[in-house]
Amino acid sequence: MANNKKMVEAITSMDEDFAQWYTDIVKKAELVEYTSVKGCMVIRPYGYAIWENMQRILDGMFKALGHENVCMPMFIPESLLQKEKDHVEGFAPEVAWVTHGGSEKLEERLCVRPTSETLFCEHYANIIHSWRDLPKLYNQWVSVVRWEKTTRPFLRSREFLWQEGHTIHATAEEAIEETERMLGVYADFCENALAMPVVKGRKTESDKFAGAVSTYAIEAMMHDGKALQAGTSHYFGDGFAKAFGIQFSGKDNTLQTPHQTSWGVSTRLIGAVIMAHGDDNGLVLPPAVAPIQVVILPIAQHKPGVLEKAAELKNRLSAVVRVKVDDSENSAGWKFAEYEMKGVPLRLEIGPKDIENNQCVLVTRHNREKHVVSLDELETAIPALLQKVHDGLYQKALDNRRNHTYACTSLDEITRVLEEKGDGFIEAMWCGDEACEDAVKEKTGVGSRCIPFEQKHLSDTCVCCGKPAKHMVLWGKAY
Amino acid sequence: MANNKKMVEAITSMDEDFAQWYTDIVKKAELVEYTSVKGCMVIRPYGYAIWENMQRILDGMFKALGHENVCMPMFIPESLLQKEKDHVEGFAPEVAWVTHGGSEKLEERLCVRPTSETLFCEHYANIIHSWRDLPKLYNQWVSVVRWEKTTRPFLRSREFLWQEGHTIHATAEEAIEETERMLGVYADFCENALAMPVVKGRKTESDKFAGAVSTYAIEAMMHDGKALQAGTSHYFGDGFAKAFGIQFSGKDNTLQTPHQTSWGVSTRLIGAVIMAHGDDNGLVLPPAVAPIQVVILPIAQHKPGVLEKAAELKNRLSAVVRVKVDDSENSAGWKFAEYEMKGVPLRLEIGPKDIENNQCVLVTRHNREKHVVSLDELETAIPALLQKVHDGLYQKALDNRRNHTYACTSLDEITRVLEEKGDGFIEAMWCGDEACEDAVKEKTGVGSRCIPFEQKHLSDTCVCCGKPAKHMVLWGKAY
Repeated sequence: MANNKKMVEAITSMDEDFAQWYTDIVKKAELVEYTSVKGCMVIRPYGYAIWENMQRILDGMFKALGHENVCMPMFIPESLLQKEKDHVEGFAPEVAWVTHGGSEKLEERLCVRPTSETLFCEHYANIIHSWRDLPKLYNQWVSVVRWEKTTRPFLRSREFLWQEGHTIHATAEEAIEETERMLGVYADFCENALAMPVVKGRKTESDKFAGAVSTYAIEAMMHDGKALQAGTSHYFGDGFAKAFGIQFSGKDNTLQTPHQTSWGVSTRLIGAVIMAHGDDNGLVLPPAVAPIQVVILPIAQHKPGVLEKAAELKNRLSAVVRVKVDDSENSAGWKFAEYEMKGVPLRLEIGPKDIENNQCVLVTRHNREKHVVSLDELETAIPALLQKVHDGLYQKALDNRRNHTYACTSLDEITRVLEEKGDGFIEAMWCGDEACEDAVKEKTGVGSRCIPFEQKHLSDTCVCCGKPAKHMVLWGKAY
Repeated sequence: MANNKKMVEAITSMDEDFAQWYTDIVKKAELVEYTSVKGCMVIRPYGYAIWENMQRILDGMFKALGHENVCMPMFIPESLLQKEKDHVEGFAPEVAWVTHGGSEKLEERLCVRPTSETLFCEHYANIIHSWRDLPKLYNQWVSVVRWEKTTRPFLRSREFLWQEGHTIHATAEEAIEETERMLGVYADFCENALAMPVVKGRKTESDKFAGAVSTYAIEAMMHDGKALQAGTSHYFGDGFAKAFGIQFSGKDNTLQTPHQTSWGVSTRLIGAVIMAHGDDNGLVLPPAVAPIQVVILPIAQHKPGVLEKAAELKNRLSAVVRVKVDDSENSAGWKFAEYEMKGVPLRLEIGPKDIENNQCVLVTRHNREKHVVSLDELETAIPALLQKVHDGLYQKALDNRRNHTYACTSLDEITRVLEEKGDGFIEAMWCGDEACEDAVKEKTGVGSRCIPFEQKHLSDTCVCCGKPAKHMVLWGKAY
């Protein structure tokens, strides 16, 4: 589709104003558009195609492990939400309430689901009777609503798309294993599909999901040194099951209470991809989720044979990659900038000279390296280059995290490091006391992100109170 | 998963009580479960897997025609809903209203989308400026809410899953072409994927979508002779565009108003499949959307080699079809009944004798025909049999429709036919006057379903008033 008049405008540089840079990208790469519904957004075709790729890959991973998709109602009656005490306390303040159907006032108001534990529990109470009915490994792809005060596209919006896995097991051991397994699935997905390294860990008590025994999370570092929680997996023990009266007769014919988990990732991951890989020219997409993996740009396209060759290459490559030709009448310069803004991993330039030499130029988005490749070798050269792009993005993000992770043994050191080096991850020991967790936050500005599974022994004492340390905690500012 | 205690209970026969037969199937085939949210349901894994298959096929058809997926907010501010007069009149009485976010009353109440024309229009007004921005061929897969008084699983529920296509074009001709094209896509899908013949036609003025210039629909006949509207496609002209101020500068630099369409199908199609193909033994699924296409039942599975052979066949066939082995300890009789209830198109029986003879028995669900097939030929025999099943289902449904479609030339004849033959489609001429349409309904009980594209000339005069006839109308009772 020709679009001569459109100009690719420069975006704010990330060093100048990271928040504005982010906002510029989501608008100019055409990922979202604002609406008159405050805090809600339109996810535009290019943004939604990224989400579809994420969904397809994750859904395949879930199903390979035996999970099945279901769909619960979007509404939760107030009395149902209130059945688990911690859960309702955590969510009631931020739900949207439906009070009228047509012109009639409802007898009981309904909230729009902020998460669906209560609905799954009600369903499980209906369908689970015997040990033979266990486990149930369910998941759903839906949107949820949380009435946030301040919102930002993908990172925090009143409505967002996600998947929520909800499983129920005969034993605590099985449920804990599932909780950990799914955190591992998320970590693998972030690393292998999003080229984004993550730290796996456990949340502190104060940071747990409302109603959980323990919450695990993966934390990624964004380009500005801040942390983004990219996925969570919760172990519920039998708390929800007891509150909802879910019981089953075991193999020994005794009545038992099952154990549950839930786990989720959301469109927030699109925000993570933007801030982990993007640069001052726009989005940089990991090949696995890029809607267009290769854009073919015909050079001097008015010359005989150029457009035909571009179309021929597109047809050939369609079997191997997601590929598009831009044969619009926009200038080559405009097109270069446009597909850099959109973060297309590979640009394929083909002009009269190239055709003569039976070659083309492939340029990798993230580092602008040029590769002259024979047209006969594209089917192998392009997937190999895409793998290199993935590896390059991953390494760059990992280097960024390593370069901005600091081990500290005192509050003063934390404060000094943050002042000198800017935002980053702080590794520091903690006694396990919530008062110290709060004090660290208050005095240094960084909160506890998680207790990493991979522990280091930095010192014997808590960074705050000097009492014996229990864990090394990862601290940081968070999105 | 063994489930010894579970019994396959008989369901109500369809001749005895068709409505109860339907309810029995949706419960016992484990498609849905009721919830404490009145009028809303849980779509269980087996039901949701049917929907996923429908989605995958339809989404591929949409994308092959250049449509792109997006996602709009689920909320519509009241003022936005009110912008198009006919539209708000049609939908306001049946929407759910959100009035509070957390503990605060909203300044403006929001409805949960009953359909998203208003949101798409607001978005189009933001992003469309030039003829170069047209057409936009958008679609979204979401759930919508309509506050129905009486509900039935899949057929009419307060929340249902659907896709809604929304397109916008430079000219009326293009938009009309799109409206007709998408009705054709739906008809092809119903016939080729669901084995369900449909009548394509136009709705009368009184039956149009709120805000449409014209509404096209496909109508399918259910087993009881009633009609089910299986999909609709609307042409909006420029009415919405004018109400929402959507304009573009044309090639000639004049300011012009674009033309729009919308079209949708929903989880209602699952209800259609149940009632078009089901029988007294349960569900009968068309192969294209069946979650399990072939179920392998090991016979005398305690005998050496039987379970191994079943597993081997499953692995072999996984490359060709969606296949499952049931090696649970339930009796063969239980398993036969269970997979008949679930409508699995093909049952593959393999026992010691079969293994000796290098063969198996394949039984087609819809007619219980047995086919003894060499194990060496399964990869070709099974797809061929599934095609036969599809053709058989289609023909059976087509015969049912033909046998229950009656051409009538007077109201008395309509009444007599319905009394003698039971429910069915009535073909009768109509003058085009709404008063006659209402009178037919009042006097005979059948309403106008559509004005079929394929017209017949049954007589010169309206079946009701005797004035000159304009169209042949398809009349019937509807779900």
